[in-house]
Amino acid sequence: MRFLTAGESHGPQLTVIIEGLPAGLELTGDAISLELYKRQGGYGRGRRMQIEKDTVEITSGVRHGYTLGSPVTLIVRNDDHKHWLNIMGVEPIDQSAHDEMRRVITKPRPGHADLVGGMKYNHRDLRNVLERSSARETAARVAVGAVCKILLQQLDVEIFSRVKAIGGVRDEGVYSPAEIKAKNHANDVRVVDESLAQAMRDRIDAAKKAGDSLGGEVEVTVMNVPPGLGSYVHYDRKLDGRIAQSVISINAFKGVSFGDGFKMADMPGSEVQDPIAHDEEGYSRLSNHLGGLEGGMTNGMPIVVNAVMKPIPTLYKPLQSVDIETKESYLASIERSDSCAVPAASIVCEHAVAFEIAKAVLEEFQSNYMEQLREQINAHRERVRQF
Amino acid sequence: MRFLTAGESHGPQLTVIIEGLPAGLELTGDAISLELYKRQGGYGRGRRMQIEKDTVEITSGVRHGYTLGSPVTLIVRNDDHKHWLNIMGVEPIDQSAHDEMRRVITKPRPGHADLVGGMKYNHRDLRNVLERSSARETAARVAVGAVCKILLQQLDVEIFSRVKAIGGVRDEGVYSPAEIKAKNHANDVRVVDESLAQAMRDRIDAAKKAGDSLGGEVEVTVMNVPPGLGSYVHYDRKLDGRIAQSVISINAFKGVSFGDGFKMADMPGSEVQDPIAHDEEGYSRLSNHLGGLEGGMTNGMPIVVNAVMKPIPTLYKPLQSVDIETKESYLASIERSDSCAVPAASIVCEHAVAFEIAKAVLEEFQSNYMEQLREQINAHRERVRQF
Amino acid sequence: MRFLTAGESHGPQLTVIIEGLPAGLELTGDAISLELYKRQGGYGRGRRMQIEKDTVEITSGVRHGYTLGSPVTLIVRNDDHKHWLNIMGVEPIDQSAHDEMRRVITKPRPGHADLVGGMKYNHRDLRNVLERSSARETAARVAVGAVCKILLQQLDVEIFSRVKAIGGVRDEGVYSPAEIKAKNHANDVRVVDESLAQAMRDRIDAAKKAGDSLGGEVEVTVMNVPPGLGSYVHYDRKLDGRIAQSVISINAFKGVSFGDGFKMADMPGSEVQDPIAHDEEGYSRLSNHLGGLEGGMTNGMPIVVNAVMKPIPTLYKPLQSVDIETKESYLASIERSDSCAVPAASIVCEHAVAFEIAKAVLEEFQSNYMEQLREQINAHRERVRQF
Amino acid sequence: MRFLTAGESHGPQLTVIIEGLPAGLELTGDAISLELYKRQGGYGRGRRMQIEKDTVEITSGVRHGYTLGSPVTLIVRNDDHKHWLNIMGVEPIDQSAHDEMRRVITKPRPGHADLVGGMKYNHRDLRNVLERSSARETAARVAVGAVCKILLQQLDVEIFSRVKAIGGVRDEGVYSPAEIKAKNHANDVRVVDESLAQAMRDRIDAAKKAGDSLGGEVEVTVMNVPPGLGSYVHYDRKLDGRIAQSVISINAFKGVSFGDGFKMADMPGSEVQDPIAHDEEGYSRLSNHLGGLEGGMTNGMPIVVNAVMKPIPTLYKPLQSVDIETKESYLASIERSDSCAVPAASIVCEHAVAFEIAKAVLEEFQSNYMEQLREQINAHRERVRQF
Repeated sequence: MRFLTAGESHGPQLTVIIEGLPAGLELTGDAISLELYKRQGGYGRGRRMQIEKDTVEITSGVRHGYTLGSPVTLIVRNDDHKHWLNIMGVEPIDQSAHDEMRRVITKPRPGHADLVGGMKYNHRDLRNVLERSSARETAARVAVGAVCKILLQQLDVEIFSRVKAIGGVRDEGVYSPAEIKAKNHANDVRVVDESLAQAMRDRIDAAKKAGDSLGGEVEVTVMNVPPGLGSYVHYDRKLDGRIAQSVISINAFKGVSFGDGFKMADMPGSEVQDPIAHDEEGYSRLSNHLGGLEGGMTNGMPIVVNAVMKPIPTLYKPLQSVDIETKESYLASIERSDSCAVPAASIVCEHAVAFEIAKAVLEEFQSNYMEQLREQINAHRERVRQF
Repeated sequence: MRFLTAGESHGPQLTVIIEGLPAGLELTGDAISLELYKRQGGYGRGRRMQIEKDTVEITSGVRHGYTLGSPVTLIVRNDDHKHWLNIMGVEPIDQSAHDEMRRVITKPRPGHADLVGGMKYNHRDLRNVLERSSARETAARVAVGAVCKILLQQLDVEIFSRVKAIGGVRDEGVYSPAEIKAKNHANDVRVVDESLAQAMRDRIDAAKKAGDSLGGEVEVTVMNVPPGLGSYVHYDRKLDGRIAQSVISINAFKGVSFGDGFKMADMPGSEVQDPIAHDEEGYSRLSNHLGGLEGGMTNGMPIVVNAVMKPIPTLYKPLQSVDIETKESYLASIERSDSCAVPAASIVCEHAVAFEIAKAVLEEFQSNYMEQLREQINAHRERVRQF
Repeated sequence: MRFLTAGESHGPQLTVIIEGLPAGLELTGDAISLELYKRQGGYGRGRRMQIEKDTVEITSGVRHGYTLGSPVTLIVRNDDHKHWLNIMGVEPIDQSAHDEMRRVITKPRPGHADLVGGMKYNHRDLRNVLERSSARETAARVAVGAVCKILLQQLDVEIFSRVKAIGGVRDEGVYSPAEIKAKNHANDVRVVDESLAQAMRDRIDAAKKAGDSLGGEVEVTVMNVPPGLGSYVHYDRKLDGRIAQSVISINAFKGVSFGDGFKMADMPGSEVQDPIAHDEEGYSRLSNHLGGLEGGMTNGMPIVVNAVMKPIPTLYKPLQSVDIETKESYLASIERSDSCAVPAASIVCEHAVAFEIAKAVLEEFQSNYMEQLREQINAHRERVRQF
Repeated sequence: MRFLTAGESHGPQLTVIIEGLPAGLELTGDAISLELYKRQGGYGRGRRMQIEKDTVEITSGVRHGYTLGSPVTLIVRNDDHKHWLNIMGVEPIDQSAHDEMRRVITKPRPGHADLVGGMKYNHRDLRNVLERSSARETAARVAVGAVCKILLQQLDVEIFSRVKAIGGVRDEGVYSPAEIKAKNHANDVRVVDESLAQAMRDRIDAAKKAGDSLGGEVEVTVMNVPPGLGSYVHYDRKLDGRIAQSVISINAFKGVSFGDGFKMADMPGSEVQDPIAHDEEGYSRLSNHLGGLEGGMTNGMPIVVNAVMKPIPTLYKPLQSVDIETKESYLASIERSDSCAVPAASIVCEHAVAFEIAKAVLEEFQSNYMEQLREQINAHRERVRQF
């Protein structure tokens, strides 16, 4: 399974083509849109999230509600595009048009792709960079992940996420997957310990008031994963490496870890490895410090992925930058106004992980149609139980 | 640039083929071997590191000391193989040979690939798994990275690493790249604050005495990287994502982050983004919280990669496991005796990063021979200065 | 550069995403549409070609008439879809709907993907196969190739095609590239020797009357290609191999060759290799038997690709097949009515080749924007001249 | 499954790493060497083929005669290397050494990679090109293909080849696969119609005497292939395209076709498509004009691949070329002396095809060990029978 995404933030639409899905998967645009709505929620988002409700339209690869095995196209129209027809039009324009009419941007924002993107692609109008480097693209990745979640659901694999910390307010609780799942969408900061929700909101409000922004930490859990996804035989087949790439490639994500993560630097080996047990249900682990991955492979325990999102760089409290035309210093411009996107980012992270799990499942249990996939996974689970 | 590695831990040799190197790179086996020696050093390693000194032999792609542009083969012979001729022989054997003679392993070690690897490939002799899942493979990756470091050196890109923490002893110092580089190989625990070196060694000794093992945290720095490696235009072209995959695919690595990493969960945005300045040398940043990467691209600041290594799972202090034949619980077997491999792992991490940087350089400045590569990078640096 | 195509023959639209184009390429939907019109022409096409005029809409990656460096989305709407809303709808339907209403197909046509596609994806309604396996997909590939041709044009690389034979009427002439180019669209069977045009049309008419269909042979020429695209160092980097894959993956194409092609089986070596000459313009060849490729690399001479298209399998003169439900033999059904698609196929082939050339150019002269690409190629041409 | 090959013609060894083989495949170096011997046979080969007998050594991925699932390394030592230690040594040499001692080559041979390879990689000693572009590399590809053939044999898939034409002597017979297989190694020109063998040898002798060389046409047949390998859903998944790439990337191969190939340009559709029949054994075809592939997928009929090899460019009868140092014209130099390599090339082609078939099988029936692979293919065959 592979996919390409396309689309600028204020262009006509986002487009995704997913190639390699099995036939016979029940799939509707509405089911995908549900996940997009979740991405748009969360305390601390700016105006745009409220005015636009992303909706997915399927234009290929699905007939009468089921996938055909051919590439699936997903389209998310940008409702806002109608206000940007001149600025972001596809058609040639009179090059003598005033830069202001084209809303040319020459002031790169620290923390964004603006400056380097301009250097790389030789764009002197940095809008040509930021329209694509924008986190708008994560809507496309959620759409892909939503398809993957629907597929995984058919295989009894569940995936959910939570916010562990926002701007220093941290949920230190240790929860079972069931507890996390139960609180999946219980509040608008996506924290399990609800007594912390208001503190998080307050922190976000304070940051907003100060013209500042906040990052945080999120966690994704995948339940009931078949053991043996990924492989130790070659470094680039290790599943944890692939998940890490997928997560770090989300806008503003700067770190990823598995299971006990960076705490393992301080722990003795005897407290880190997960002892193996066996009963009529097969093998199991007495703990899950390693987050469900050993030797680059799933071991049947829940996959636990932690990730850190930096505060979003767009700020009312501006930072020093340099105008690329005048070379003069200035205080960086503001394009939009979210002060904290961590709850939304937890949704994106969940979907980025979902893609890698689904891809690994389709590699390991290659099937051209869903019934075959289900059979293969069931047979595998039974075989592993009896190993 | 791409590579494949091959070889079992006690087989005749490790083999690497690297495809895509430019012609005209000065390269000798000895220069690569130097990096392999570094991997074998470090306080806390077991017996094997002392008896074997890895040496690289080049058998293709190099003529009279220079690369040809054709695939380069690197071979690292396992001196130890002569003692394993029966156990690890390639040729067919009499299948009725006693399992003991073949040293069949039926007791999977927690924290290793043993159990899941056995399930996946249907190996009931788990030696068939652990011979490949062994960290021995990291020697091959260091060999690849060494070639990349030699190439990067020609482009004035420098790469080095340090140990930040071992088993809870943590170097909290904040150092300039120059300071880190100066202490690169100053002590056998690879710590910059040398006053901590003995505490680290003591911790390792104590763990060893207790039959336990220790993990730690390492950091890799890459200096003088051309801006614009990687790209924001598609998620799988982001360089930080690729580095993350490469690092997490090192044995026992469970987390990776960039710049201030997980600390950013607690920081306000105004303290995280790196302000942009400009002078006759071109653009620069007034800080490096983001670790040299914005929008999935290098921004010209040092790349700073942090990673956590879990304590190695092999233990004298055994953990509960299950014999896959008898299904009886037992305390996990011991194959070797390192108690801490963090200093060595910092070397491996450095080389895993070196590969991704070199690969990105060759993608961005595609060149068939070194002189062209140097010219292209110089032209790019000048162009970026004048942007 | 990479792309994905999507879309069913009677679905709402074809969609293409192209990733990896440089920024700064002048590009409009109209310029791409021009090539699509050519595909729709040609003597011998059926009704659909006349009722539908394919038009390309760009929905990403282009702003104000120039590429941005981000993925480019191309959409070709199927005007016909409005008549197929029930049959090819994306939304779920009442599964009890009569098969007839869904126009279920249970009769696989010999020569099509129908039967094997049904087996593979477990489709018992073979419409689920043929909607995607249809040659309609070649419109998407022409769209991709059109973008590549526009890019190549900027580099003074020209590409054109001709029909060499249709249903046994063969143009045996030996022509210079200039002669071929001059007759590029001179007649509706795309033959250089215009005296043969009527014979070809007559042959097509006769076949149509007989309820039969005709194949033919086409040739693609690429002029002014920089030497050194592709590489001999690894088998999968040879450009001729890649072109061959691209051509054979066009619907109904069953053979591909370069230069003198299969005739070389009968020729002595002394008449096949192209002697090398040199003057102030640099190196040249005194002949072009090898079709511009030596050692898997372009040598600067025109690339000459020949390919054979089988007669399209859809026939009024039906063939024996088997109903997959009743298992009874029958005479194969008819979905449409082209009797000869060779002129159109020559256009598709030209575009399939254009993609591989452009991809190889972008690999060899990696550039993020057009100006840089032009400079690099010019520098290369000069360097090669002086070699 | 993927592989890399490495090694220069007169370097110490050829090396291959194959990644992605299932565990549990019985494999020995001797079994692979058997196929290499076949490559070395054939009437018309020069001296080197007689002095060197290629032997494969396995150095990873196999234990006690069975694959482990980890990467397999194959080594073929160049016995001749001992005579080339100075000329082709890996170690640096005194650059002031006389060019003659290094046997510097400045005269590019027409029809070889010499000139363009030199331009591309900036080699002024063309030996740096020809050592890798040499057909010596095909030994590595035969080694890979031999492993694939051994794997396919376990799945009852058979693959063999024949010579159809050499230098104008053509076997016009139409043979069943069984007849071809029966004559597989019946004579040293690999022709089915043995009455033509002497004519072919005579033609080779005459060419040799005239200082000339001969090409020819070969055919590969694959029997008992499971239907449904490859896919129509995306152009780059079509199996015939992949086979075409693989074949064309063999040194000196200039054309490839399937089934009736280029003859289809002259045939009416009613004689080209293969009618479908059905009985208790499932579906079958009443003919095999399409060579076993429809819609880019195997249809269960024998795969028939035709390919043309140009006469090898090395000639006693020299061709005009240009010395790259003096820029003076000269008559091209001679490096070796085969006059016809078509019989050997038929073996190489067979192995190039075997790799693509095995790769497609492992993609379609992904399995980590042989027993699972056999079960999956058997289940598929039964399912397809009942479709």
